[in-house]
This record gives sequence, C-alpha cells and structure tokens, in this order.
Amino acid sequence: MTKLWGGRFQKSAEQWVDEFGASIEFDQKLVMEDIEGSKAHVKMLGACEILTEDDTALILSGLQTLKEKAAAGDLAYSSANEDIHLNLERFLIEEIGPVGGKLHTGRSRNDQVATDMHLYLKNRVGEIIEAVDNFQQAIVEQAESHVETIVPGYTHLQRAQPISFGHHLLTYFWMLQRDKERLSESLKRIDMSPLGAGAMSGTTFPIDRELAAEYLGFAGVYPNSIDAVSDRDFIVEFLSNASMLMMHMSRFAEEIILWSSEEFRFIELDDTFSTGSSIMPQKKNPDMAELIRGKTGRVYGNLFGLLTTLKGLPLAYNKDMQEDKEGMFDTVHTLMGSLPIFEGMVRTMTVRTDSMERAVSSDFSNATELADYLAAKGMPFREAHDVTGKLVFTCIQRGYYLKDLPFDDMKAASPLIEEDIYETLKPRTAVERRNSLGGTGFGQVHKQMEQAKTLVKH
Amino acid sequence: MTKLWGGRFQKSAEQWVDEFGASIEFDQKLVMEDIEGSKAHVKMLGACEILTEDDTALILSGLQTLKEKAAAGDLAYSSANEDIHLNLERFLIEEIGPVGGKLHTGRSRNDQVATDMHLYLKNRVGEIIEAVDNFQQAIVEQAESHVETIVPGYTHLQRAQPISFGHHLLTYFWMLQRDKERLSESLKRIDMSPLGAGAMSGTTFPIDRELAAEYLGFAGVYPNSIDAVSDRDFIVEFLSNASMLMMHMSRFAEEIILWSSEEFRFIELDDTFSTGSSIMPQKKNPDMAELIRGKTGRVYGNLFGLLTTLKGLPLAYNKDMQEDKEGMFDTVHTLMGSLPIFEGMVRTMTVRTDSMERAVSSDFSNATELADYLAAKGMPFREAHDVTGKLVFTCIQRGYYLKDLPFDDMKAASPLIEEDIYETLKPRTAVERRNSLGGTGFGQVHKQMEQAKTLVKH
Amino acid sequence: MTKLWGGRFQKSAEQWVDEFGASIEFDQKLVMEDIEGSKAHVKMLGACEILTEDDTALILSGLQTLKEKAAAGDLAYSSANEDIHLNLERFLIEEIGPVGGKLHTGRSRNDQVATDMHLYLKNRVGEIIEAVDNFQQAIVEQAESHVETIVPGYTHLQRAQPISFGHHLLTYFWMLQRDKERLSESLKRIDMSPLGAGAMSGTTFPIDRELAAEYLGFAGVYPNSIDAVSDRDFIVEFLSNASMLMMHMSRFAEEIILWSSEEFRFIELDDTFSTGSSIMPQKKNPDMAELIRGKTGRVYGNLFGLLTTLKGLPLAYNKDMQEDKEGMFDTVHTLMGSLPIFEGMVRTMTVRTDSMERAVSSDFSNATELADYLAAKGMPFREAHDVTGKLVFTCIQRGYYLKDLPFDDMKAASPLIEEDIYETLKPRTAVERRNSLGGTGFGQVHKQMEQAKTLVKH
Amino acid sequence: MTKLWGGRFQKSAEQWVDEFGASIEFDQKLVMEDIEGSKAHVKMLGACEILTEDDTALILSGLQTLKEKAAAGDLAYSSANEDIHLNLERFLIEEIGPVGGKLHTGRSRNDQVATDMHLYLKNRVGEIIEAVDNFQQAIVEQAESHVETIVPGYTHLQRAQPISFGHHLLTYFWMLQRDKERLSESLKRIDMSPLGAGAMSGTTFPIDRELAAEYLGFAGVYPNSIDAVSDRDFIVEFLSNASMLMMHMSRFAEEIILWSSEEFRFIELDDTFSTGSSIMPQKKNPDMAELIRGKTGRVYGNLFGLLTTLKGLPLAYNKDMQEDKEGMFDTVHTLMGSLPIFEGMVRTMTVRTDSMERAVSSDFSNATELADYLAAKGMPFREAHDVTGKLVFTCIQRGYYLKDLPFDDMKAASPLIEEDIYETLKPRTAVERRNSLGGTGFGQVHKQMEQAKTLVKH
Repeated sequence: MTKLWGGRFQKSAEQWVDEFGASIEFDQKLVMEDIEGSKAHVKMLGACEILTEDDTALILSGLQTLKEKAAAGDLAYSSANEDIHLNLERFLIEEIGPVGGKLHTGRSRNDQVATDMHLYLKNRVGEIIEAVDNFQQAIVEQAESHVETIVPGYTHLQRAQPISFGHHLLTYFWMLQRDKERLSESLKRIDMSPLGAGAMSGTTFPIDRELAAEYLGFAGVYPNSIDAVSDRDFIVEFLSNASMLMMHMSRFAEEIILWSSEEFRFIELDDTFSTGSSIMPQKKNPDMAELIRGKTGRVYGNLFGLLTTLKGLPLAYNKDMQEDKEGMFDTVHTLMGSLPIFEGMVRTMTVRTDSMERAVSSDFSNATELADYLAAKGMPFREAHDVTGKLVFTCIQRGYYLKDLPFDDMKAASPLIEEDIYETLKPRTAVERRNSLGGTGFGQVHKQMEQAKTLVKH
Repeated sequence: MTKLWGGRFQKSAEQWVDEFGASIEFDQKLVMEDIEGSKAHVKMLGACEILTEDDTALILSGLQTLKEKAAAGDLAYSSANEDIHLNLERFLIEEIGPVGGKLHTGRSRNDQVATDMHLYLKNRVGEIIEAVDNFQQAIVEQAESHVETIVPGYTHLQRAQPISFGHHLLTYFWMLQRDKERLSESLKRIDMSPLGAGAMSGTTFPIDRELAAEYLGFAGVYPNSIDAVSDRDFIVEFLSNASMLMMHMSRFAEEIILWSSEEFRFIELDDTFSTGSSIMPQKKNPDMAELIRGKTGRVYGNLFGLLTTLKGLPLAYNKDMQEDKEGMFDTVHTLMGSLPIFEGMVRTMTVRTDSMERAVSSDFSNATELADYLAAKGMPFREAHDVTGKLVFTCIQRGYYLKDLPFDDMKAASPLIEEDIYETLKPRTAVERRNSLGGTGFGQVHKQMEQAKTLVKH
Repeated sequence: MTKLWGGRFQKSAEQWVDEFGASIEFDQKLVMEDIEGSKAHVKMLGACEILTEDDTALILSGLQTLKEKAAAGDLAYSSANEDIHLNLERFLIEEIGPVGGKLHTGRSRNDQVATDMHLYLKNRVGEIIEAVDNFQQAIVEQAESHVETIVPGYTHLQRAQPISFGHHLLTYFWMLQRDKERLSESLKRIDMSPLGAGAMSGTTFPIDRELAAEYLGFAGVYPNSIDAVSDRDFIVEFLSNASMLMMHMSRFAEEIILWSSEEFRFIELDDTFSTGSSIMPQKKNPDMAELIRGKTGRVYGNLFGLLTTLKGLPLAYNKDMQEDKEGMFDTVHTLMGSLPIFEGMVRTMTVRTDSMERAVSSDFSNATELADYLAAKGMPFREAHDVTGKLVFTCIQRGYYLKDLPFDDMKAASPLIEEDIYETLKPRTAVERRNSLGGTGFGQVHKQMEQAKTLVKH
Repeated sequence: MTKLWGGRFQKSAEQWVDEFGASIEFDQKLVMEDIEGSKAHVKMLGACEILTEDDTALILSGLQTLKEKAAAGDLAYSSANEDIHLNLERFLIEEIGPVGGKLHTGRSRNDQVATDMHLYLKNRVGEIIEAVDNFQQAIVEQAESHVETIVPGYTHLQRAQPISFGHHLLTYFWMLQRDKERLSESLKRIDMSPLGAGAMSGTTFPIDRELAAEYLGFAGVYPNSIDAVSDRDFIVEFLSNASMLMMHMSRFAEEIILWSSEEFRFIELDDTFSTGSSIMPQKKNPDMAELIRGKTGRVYGNLFGLLTTLKGLPLAYNKDMQEDKEGMFDTVHTLMGSLPIFEGMVRTMTVRTDSMERAVSSDFSNATELADYLAAKGMPFREAHDVTGKLVFTCIQRGYYLKDLPFDDMKAASPLIEEDIYETLKPRTAVERRNSLGGTGFGQVHKQMEQAKTLVKH
C-alpha cells in the first residue's frame, strides 16, 4: 500500500515494521478529538478564505459523516495508515474525493496530534476533578457520623493517642483537596491550543490561530510554534498529579486493609467491594483496596516512563514522543476506575464502634495525658515525660493499664498527681481536651467539617 | 548515654544502630529553621501565658545563643541525640538549665520537623524561582541577538524547515516559564504552618497556632492536625516540579552538546564552561551540559524515591518519613548549581552564524515551501506533497539542491510552478513568510520576545 | 451471576466493580499455559490416585476440547468470571459437568497463576535470547565488513581518536552478550514449579509436586509453599534485564539517529526502516530508532511499577500482585518488536565510508598520536600533553590541521619531533598502531571478531 | 590554578563552576582503589620495559607514600583538581617530581576510573553477600525454634490457613537466597579489568593488559576497549539486585511492624532495635524496620537515576557518567547498614507464642480443612467449597467458630461429615497434615530447614 508520504521512497516498509511504528491501535481513542480539531481547522480555513466556501462545506460534511461512523463504530482502521490522523484523512478522501486532501492545508500532524491531546486531557481532567470531589463528599459524610467515635491514633503503627475517627478520616479529605487544587491549576497549561503551529515553525498561509482555538473552546494559544508541537509537559504534569493522587489512595487503602483485618476489626467492607477465595471459603478480602494500592505502581511507572522518554530529547518533534499516549490513557482509566470505587467503599463500609471503643480502653495511648498533666502543673516537659515513661514500665510489669494503677503508686511517682488524674486519663476526656486549632477535640473537628463542606460541590 | 525518651527502656541501643537511625548527619542543614521555629513557638507560649515571662525570656535568650553558635559553626552535634531537634534541645538545657525542657511544651518532634521543612522549602523555592528567572533572561538576551539568524529547524534530528535561531531559543523560555508558574503555585501548599499539631492530634495547652504561624511568616495553618504532621506532599510536588525542570534542561543540554560538535559547529562554548581531556590534548568538552543532562537521573531518582517511600504508608508519622530529607536537599543543591551554570553557558556562548548559514543553504529544508507554493495555487496539499517528494528524489539522484534545479525540470513536475519559485525557496524568504501567530517569521518572533520580556523580573 | 466463591456472600458485586477487579481482559494471554498447567495437575492427581482414572480421563478430554476452542478463538470470556482460571473452570464444567469441579482439588488459584506465569516467561525469555542472538549476528556481520573503515571515535560527542568502525559496532555486541548472559542466568529462577503450593501452605492431598513439574518440563520445584505463591521476583528480574537491554538499544539508537543526520551522514537507513513526513516531503526519518529509544521509558516504567507494587507487601498473596501481568506482557511485546527491527536496521543500513573518511581527515582526533609520540621518546606524558595542546591551539588560530602544520613549527614546539611525525599523524596509522589487547588496531579487532563469533549460535 | 589539561585553554574556569563539575568530594572514597590501580599499572609498565626500572621503582615508592598518607587521612584534596585521579597525580608529582607524570603513560582517566569502580564494587558485593548470608542464618535459627509454633497464615491480610511460624520465616530465607545467587552471578561481570583501554581505543604502547589485571586480582579483561570505558552495566546490575533485596526487606519489615502492633502482638522487638517518642512516653516503635522499609525508596531511586542517566547516551565516555558513583556508594552504605540491623532484629526478637496460639484458635482459618475433608470424601471441590462457605456464614451469624458448631448443624450441611471433623478442624492437625512437598507440615518444614542450612556459610 502506498504511503501518503511515500513520494520520496522506493520500497514500501514491510508490514511488521509498519505495525511496530503505527499508533492507530491506541490513538484511535482520540478519534472524536481529532474530528473536532479538523472541523475547527477547516472552519477557520474557510473563514480566512484559504478554502472556498464550497470546499469548506464539503469537508465539514465529510467530517460529520466520519463522526457519525466513529460513534457507530463503523470505521475500519488500518495500521498501514499509521495513526488516527492519516486514517481519518484517508477515510475523508474516500468519502468526498481529492478535495479531502485540502484539509491538511496549513497544518501538520505535529500540531494536529498536540491539539487532540490537549482536547482529550482537558475533558478527562475535568471529569477526574469531579470524581475526586465525589470521593471527598463520601469522606465528609462518613466523618460526620463519627466525630465522637473514638479510635486509637497511631504513629509507627503503635497506638499513640486517642482521636476522633471523624478527624482521622478528614485527613484524607485534605490530601484530596490538594489533589483537586493541583489538577485545577494544571488546566491552565492544558487549556492551550497548539493548532496552527504546523510542523514546527508556523505556516505561510494567512490562518487565524485564535479563531480556531475559540472554535475548540481553548482559553489561549501557544505563543511559540516550536514549543506548541514539542511540549508534552502538560502530560507529565498530569501524570505527576495522578501519582500523588494514587499515593494518597494507597495510604488510605493500606488503612482500609488493616482495619478490615481480624486483628483490627475497625470496619467491615460491604460485600460489593469484597471478594472471596477460590479455596478458602471463609475469606472476605478487601480486594478493591488492595488492587488500588497495587495500581499505584502502574501510575508511578507511567510517570517515570514519560519522564525517561523526554529526557535529553532535542527539539522539535521526535518519534519517541509517540510514547506519550498509552501511559496517559492508562492513567486516566486507572483513576476513573479507582476513584468511584474508593468512594463506594467509604460510603458503604460499616464502622465497628464497639471494637474501636475496646481498643482505646485497653492500651497506653493515654500516657501523653499524664505527661501533659504534670507539665501543666509546672514540671518541665522532659521530666514529666520521664516520670510517665517509668510509670508505663511499672504498669507493663504488673499487668495494669494506667487507669487501673492504684493512686498510691501514682502519688509515689510524683506528688503533683491528684485524684483527678483518673478523669484525665479517660480516652474521651483526652480527645475532648485537644482543642487547639485543627486538633482532634470535637469542637475543632466540627469546625473543620464546616470548612471542608465549603470546598466540595454541593 | 541516656536518651531523652529513654524512661521506658532498659537497655541502650548500641551505637551503630543509633547511627543508622540518626538523622543528625543530614538534618543539621535545618538548624536555622529549627531555631526559628522554636523561637516562634516559645514566644507564642509566652503570649498565651503557658510559660511565664521569665521562662520565655530565658529560653529565647538561650535560643539566640544557639543561633549565634550555629552561625559560627560552634555546635558539636552527636548522633546519640538522633536529630537536629534533640541535639538543639540538649544544647539548650546545657545552656540555660532544666527550664530548657519547657520549650517542648505543647509541641512534638512531629510538628516541629514538619515546620522546619516548610520553612526551608519556602525559602529555597523562592531562590529557585529567581534562578529560573535569571536563566530566562539570558535566553531572551541571546534570542534577541539572533532573531534574524537562520538555522535549520529539526524534527527527528533531520533538517525540517529553516527557522529563526532566536525563535528556537525562545522555546526554552516557555518551558521555563511553565516551571516558574508551577513552582509559584506550589508555594501555596508549602507556605502553611503545621506547628501546634503536636504528635498528631493537637494539644491540651491553650496555644495559638495562628500567632505562631504569623511569627514565622506563614500564610496559613493546616486545618487538620494529623494531616499537618503526616503530609509530605509539598516535598513530592517540589520534586515533581524539579524533575520537569531538569528534563527541560536535559533537552537544552542535548542541543548544546550537538551544536558544540564538530559536525554541527553551531556554537562555541566559553572556556569557563568547558573542560579538556587528561589524554587527548585537542578536546574541548561541553562537560557542564553533559553533567546537567546526567543529573536529570538523580532528580528523577529523588522523586521516585520519595513516592516509593510514601506508597502505602498508614497515618500518621512513620519513621519511613525521615527519608524525605536527603533527596530534597540533594535536589535543591542540584538545581541551585545547574541553573546559574546553564545561564552562564547561554550568556557566554558564541553563535557561529556562518556555520548556520552554510547549513540552511545546502539541504532540502525548503521543500515545504515548494509544497505550500503548489497548495496555495490550488493543488490539494496531498498532491503537492507528492510532487515535491518526487522532485526531492530527482535532486538527490542528480546531486542538486532544490534551489539549483533547472526551471525546465521544475515546470515538468507541475505546470503551476513559475520562475518566482526560486525566491520562494530561499531560506530567508521561507522564514520571513511564516507569519502565522507564534510562527518563526521575524515579526512574530519580535512580538513573542516582547511578551517574554514582560514575564521576567527586570 | 453467582460467583464460584460466593457462598459466604449475600449480595453480588455490581458489574462495574467486577470489571475493575477482573483480570480476564489481559490474563487471557495465559490461556494456553493455564490449560497446560491444568492438564499436568489432573494427570498428576490421577497418577496419585486422588482422582479416579475415569474422572482423570474425562477432565483431560474436556481440557483438550478447551485447548482446541482456545486455539480457534472460540472461547467467550466474561469478566463476571474474573480471570482466566475461573473462566476456564466454568467452561470445563459446562463441557463435562460437575466432575469438572474436581480439577481444583489440591490446588488454588494462587499456585495456578504462579505456574502460568512461570511457564509463560520461560518460553518468552527463550525467544528473547534467540532474538538478541540474531541481533548480535547482524552486528558481527556489519562489523566484519568495516574492520578497516576508519571513523572518528567520540567522547563527550567531541572527536577523540580515529577508530575502526567495526570496533565501534562490536561494542554493542558485548553489551548484548551481557544481556544474553543475564537472561540465561535468570532462567534458573524462572524454570521452577510453584504448582501444588496451594493457597500458601501446601495441601493435605497426597500430591506429587515433582511429577507435575516434570509433566510441565520444569527443572525444579519451589522448596517453600508460601514463597512459591508470593514470589514475583522472577518477573522483577526479567523487567530489570529488559530495562538494561532497552537502555543498550537506546544508546545504539541515539547513534543511529546521529549518524543518519545531515551533519554526520555516516549511514543511510534502508527505506524499510524509515518514514516520511506528512508535511515535509524531503524528510527521511529514522523513526524506528527513535521509537525504540522512546520505548525505553515504557520498559523502565514497567520495572518501576512492579517494584513499587511489591514494596512493603506482607505475605502471602495480595490482590496487588495482579498488577504483575500487564507490565510483563507489554515488556515482552516491546522487546519482541524492537529486537528484530533493530537487527533489520543494522543489517540493511548503508555505511557511507566516504563521509567517514572525510571526517577523520579533517579534525584534531590525531592529537593523542603526537602526545604519545613525545612520551615514547621519553618526555613525561603530562609535558607531552601540554606541548600538544599548545600546538593544537596554534593550529586552530592559523587555520591548519596538525598534519598540515609546517615542520619548523613542529620542531619549535619540541626538538624531539622528527619528520616521521607526519606518518604517525595519519588516521590509518593511528588506528593500526593501537594494538594493545582489545584495542582498535585491525589485528586486535579481527581477534575480537573471532571471539565474538564463538558466542553466537551459528 | 592551571589545569593539567589546560594547554589548549586561555581562561581558567571560575571556582564555582569547577566545584559543580568536580567529583573529588565523593570519589575520594575510591582513593585506595585508585592507588592500587596505579601500582598495578606502573608495575606492568615496568615489566613491559615501557618505563625504566628506576622510574618504576620511584613511582611505586611515591604511590606507597600516598597510600600511607591516605590511610592516615593526610591528603588534602582540592576540587580544583577535579577528581581523585588528578588529585593523586598531582600529589605524586609533588612527592617525586616530574617523573610522576610518567604514571599516566598508556592510560587515560577513562580506563582508570572504570578500574577503580570494578575494584570497589567487587569488594563491596563480596561483603554484601556475606551480610546476606549472616541474615539468612539468623532467620534459620529463629525458624528452627518455631517449626511447631502455629500462627495464622494470611492472604489479603485476612487469616487464611494456620501455618508453622518457622515455615513463614523461611520464606524470607528463600528470597534472600535468590538475592545471593544474583549477586554472585553478577560478580562475573564485575570481576573484569578495563585497565589499558585508554581513552577508548587502546594504546600504542606495548602494554600487557592481562598482566595488570593479574596484579589486581581480576578474573579477566574486557575484550573491547570502547566497551571497557563506557560500560556501566555492572553498576546498574548491582543497583537492580540491591533494589530487589531492599524490596524483600521492605516486605519483611512490613510484617515486623504489623507483628509488633498492639493488634497483632506476635513479637516484641528487643529494646536495641526500638525507639521511643519525644512526647508519648509509652511508645516503643519499630523504628529500624520502618526506616529500612522507607530506605527502599532511596535504593529504587538510585537504580532509576542511573538508568535515566544512561538512556540514550552515545559512545564512548560522556560526563553524564560521573553520576554513576554517588548512587552506588549510597546503596552500598544502605545495604551494609540495613542487613546487619535486620539480622539483629530477627535474632533478638521475642516471639509471643501465646498470642499466636490465641489467634489461631479463634478464627475461621481452618475452613479449608472442612472443604478438603468433604472433597476427600468425593464431593467435587467446588461443591465442598460452597457448603463450607455457607457453614461459615451460619457460624458468623450465630457467634460460633467452626470448632464450636454443634454436630447436628454440621451433619445438616452435609451427611458426609462425621465426628472426626472436630479433630480435623484443630489448627495443629491442619498444619500437620499439609505434608505435600514444601508444605507447612512439620516434617516438610524440617526437611526444608535442612536444605536451607546447606546454603549458608557457617
């Protein structure tokens, strides 16, 4: 089969080489964006009188036909035509005859593919922001039901201090909020039109790039034609933002998995988000949380892949850049799957407040209370810390928790300790009293919740 | 040596284990930030009447002494004291006695180290933005001298179309502009105070977090205490931005290296930014460009290191997070070295306009002109492309460039071709005529330059 | 649809969640390996009298039917059945009735999938080794034709010393030789059977794991059942080896691209391995080399993805591990595409010996000869280096190459220089005289070539 | 300060640029290797009569002096001399006069630094293999004490089947065994001498590369001089192997952390390998396990850093390759710290057999026993699985474990169930009966242990 660019060549490439080089297998995902881009381009060519009214109308109607066929799945792509652009161009020529060849006037595949990518990612990032927002709402709702549910707070996976479970959940709200911010900020760099940059240097045709950009709904145009065609930063930025988002989900997933274990028993996942075992009938596995945690690797890999590809690449377009697409598509797919599933897990999970209560009442996570109690009575904190540490050690040796230690032993440790220490040591008291701004005290958590609600959509 | 947290322990850790766990060897870089953070904390404790005026004053004066000693390099850190925080606390106690132990009231190492990191990175990112801006200025200046210098534009490292060398250089301006934008946007998330979040849940002391934040010049405070201590996103974001910036420099470096080769000879680097060989006396190597290109790997590695470390980490603080520092320090160091060196290379390089001219006048990079010429006369672009391709093939076979091909051969290829084709084929004409917005036409490049100048500092 | 593991569940998962969790879309690639594994398992169950002869025969014939259907593309997989294992089991039950349920006796999906992966990768690594060997042969053949073709050797992309082009090409032979070695060594760890490890702890059935392994052609069995099901090291090792191999190809590709440029003109690629431009008719782009270079990122990403996924994963199987497959498949596909294409490029490329000759006769890459000449006459090397450096500088100022510098100027630089210096400075002499072991002297290159030939297949 | 290679240059580099380019700050770690390499080189030059006996003796004595000074820390390195090689050469000239300049005869920094790296890594990899072996021994010893300690085996962090704790621990033995194998295999590619390859093409001096290699204890020499100086594969291979090893430790570390939690309480770490909190006096944190898990990121980062640096690098030496060292040093340091610490943790940890026993006797991890029991009586496994799943569900609703379920309920579920089911359901029975090869049955674990012991050094 003769190539569209084959004039200079004497021998056609063998099919297997063609297939390796072709991108049509994956870039057909851009079919709608490519048609939209072509429509805008040809409308602009018409408006600038570079094409006649008749040619413009004919090409537009041909493109419309292709759009309908694409929607119906009626386009038979061929790897001999390399990519979505040449496939569509050939279809167009088949549809309307040689005038279809005029579509490419003042344009190159370099600015065309860049335009498709910008259009595609602009829409997808919008949808991802929406999905993050929905996920945040699920968190707020669960958190709201558990402001006064007390659970051990952990550092080093050791119980540290009793906290509000709602407060704990809201931590993830704020991570996601930063994700949403970054994604929104990135739109500024995605929402730019490269169309009209040509192969790299612009064109001699009197085109109107701003008009084409306006047709496509872009907020602006690239000020430098070489940058327009060789810039893939917006994809790297997207993959960076996606990596962070996956990292956040991997942290939350890790907790979901821990909490679902027999040992923690803090939550039970809904059956919808769990699976069983082919061999062990009793199993109820937090598969979705594990899978999302596992998929973090894939998204990091996509980011690293593109960064590697772009490293040391001279200007302007190089074929290496064809590798920008699959990782992006895969990342979009991963996020658009993971976000609503995580949202669903959080919305439907059952919180076992009884297990949580049992946990906080049988550990030493109230030790800080004792140290703070002593410090508040004037003992330097370092000394208070030391006194408390020794009391904990005594308790462990004698099989007590702090709340069970006889008052005489308390007093012996420090004459500053009074009977009110037992009230202080209660987990609920401990949580309630942490009323510093952003702290786990119930009042603070409620205030935080109100602030959070203003940051989601409804 | 007894640990500050040792009350509960019966056996001291052996020294080699201590050293593996200690961070003092690298976190001493944060000494000034740690002292500033402590000063703000103690001033706030005083203002809130949690400490007496006397204690406050005494601690502040002790901290001031430490600051002076630190500046003079007079602090002898010990890995037995683990990290910068415990080292300084011990120095303080040595300086002013047990009252020094009150400094840690209502604070934990968890919020303390987070505060140090925010302070550190806020300042460094400010400096990096400045260095990027300086680099951009150097580019604008070189570009301005070479708006009308014509050079082959490349795609696939094959000569594509003649372009303005100034236009080419400005491409890097726009990449850096996006870097600057992202770094500036990231400041919003860096410029937040975690101080007062305690170990993870806030504190029972009536502290004023906003006051402490104000003392430190932070724009806001974290709304959630757990997030405040477990968030390292701002470092990941910095490393992502740094990776992109290094990627940009690696692309520019690749070109500097190509242009410096005997084969291209487009530029000559100043001796200051070149080195010789221990064995080959004639060599003049673009070492700095190579080194910066090579260091891209290091920065990518730092990003992936931290992303890996954070993957799947449950809340709140885990010791894994100690690994957040070295990669960040190394990245700051790499950027603060690479940026001014690249700036210097660009400022001082000699552009060999003669080689560039020779290059554009002896190749087929004007072939697009012929195709566009035919398309402008009404031939569908695809056909024009084909006719041109065949003419190029003829030329190669007969040892001509297009500009040398006899008119009869031109005419034979297409009757649309007139004598004015020879003017059209001149590289200068080709460049001049690409006057679409953002194109390489001189007028467009001048406009672009004006826009660029408004985006740098002076 | 009821799940095979659904007895314990009260609500079926919604379809979209199913689809996110299902692996059938990609693990159907393992269909043949899965059937082979099942056949071996059931034969072993029969031999151990765990299944009756009749049941064994029936299941085997059912599996054979499935195998034929699979080969014909007649199996309609469903994501409701999650993965290739449950799909096939259900097909089997449809085929032969409830007795099909006995196939899973003494086996779990955990050891089953691990077996499939080992079988798959063992075969693919064998094919990749073969493809590397073919590539090496192409290199040896090109190198053999160009032992005495002289070309500049580069360091820092600056001309360093004249070398044999065959010698240069053979460098890649040795890189690939190490790749082959590592891939071969890795087979030791791939060629191991996990079958019979069950879910993680073995089985109570009196199975014979060694017999099943023998049926499958495995060299050994895993000695620990937990390791057998949770080990994915062999895939990581494959991805590491693949990353190194891609890195090697990226280096060679970079040179192919440089050599194909107008500036170097050292080779011309065959049309089969080049493509044109949609807009610039003169272009002949080394697309395949660029694409392979670009695909390095993808393979690195696959490695990094899996390393990330496995980081911090507790024993034994976790759903995260489902992410082991796509990156492996993609890497196999990338290598099996890139290797023969690179082989073809090297076999068919035209070496432009005229350009190479022109290059070596017009530069300073013979400067080391002069320094060595002086050192051989007793001047300390450092001094000889310095004298030569100054002469090079003189030449540059006066527009000479060293070979053109009048003898008086030579003599003035050092009285040790005699007339024979001009012979010494000839590129051919320079190459010929580098006869240290492994050096570029023709005799050495021929010896090296003979050694190389013993390391490839025919 | 004049550069050793400065003859060709007219202007000296400014200090800050020097410092950025210099490697002396980190490559001074190679001082001993560099001196050894120089001694071997000069001895060989003497043996080949390229240097006189006197010169050889004088240089050797000078190098000996430098070696002693280096050992005593008496060498004052300067970044003006760039790297360890030029620093030492200048010291040598200061020590013995201009004859020191003859040391560099027939050698370049390119082959010199490669030689240093090979020597360095050969020794370090030997030490790391030793440290892995020691770690394996600690595992074998702990495992040996706990063959009959029963603990829940987990998949998806859900209790799956009761297993031998010794069996579980041995899983890590096998991972480490593969690490040791790979490291040993890599020695073949590390233990090669590049010395004598010169800048890239060999030398005209009649050197004897094999003799020099013999002096240095290398097993062979590189057969291609360009490969010899541009190969960094052996470092990438080391970093890949190190990444896998860290990944293994991260998995073990995750389990150590889980087991140390209040929720699991399966082990207690020795105080030596734990730390406390600056604010929470009760905390005993598994810091070392967390830190090692966290350091996985750093090592992955070092691997990806070098892979990135090498991607697309043309032959032969490029300055980018200077970036090969710090990541390697850091990785060696990380492994040589992590391995003995992990060994110590495992040796000294207390296993809480009581908690483990409590765990296995109060869960459904014996459900597979029931399914296998039914399958052994002829019920197709899928049906057995289903029956068991339903019984588990019944138990959960009624608050029983399987072992407590009245016989009538059992019988009702399937008439195949007899009274012996209660024996079958005992965790100890379950473990004992899993006697398939490599299974968790005690006999199998003992056999496995014997095999393991043959693979470690003692």
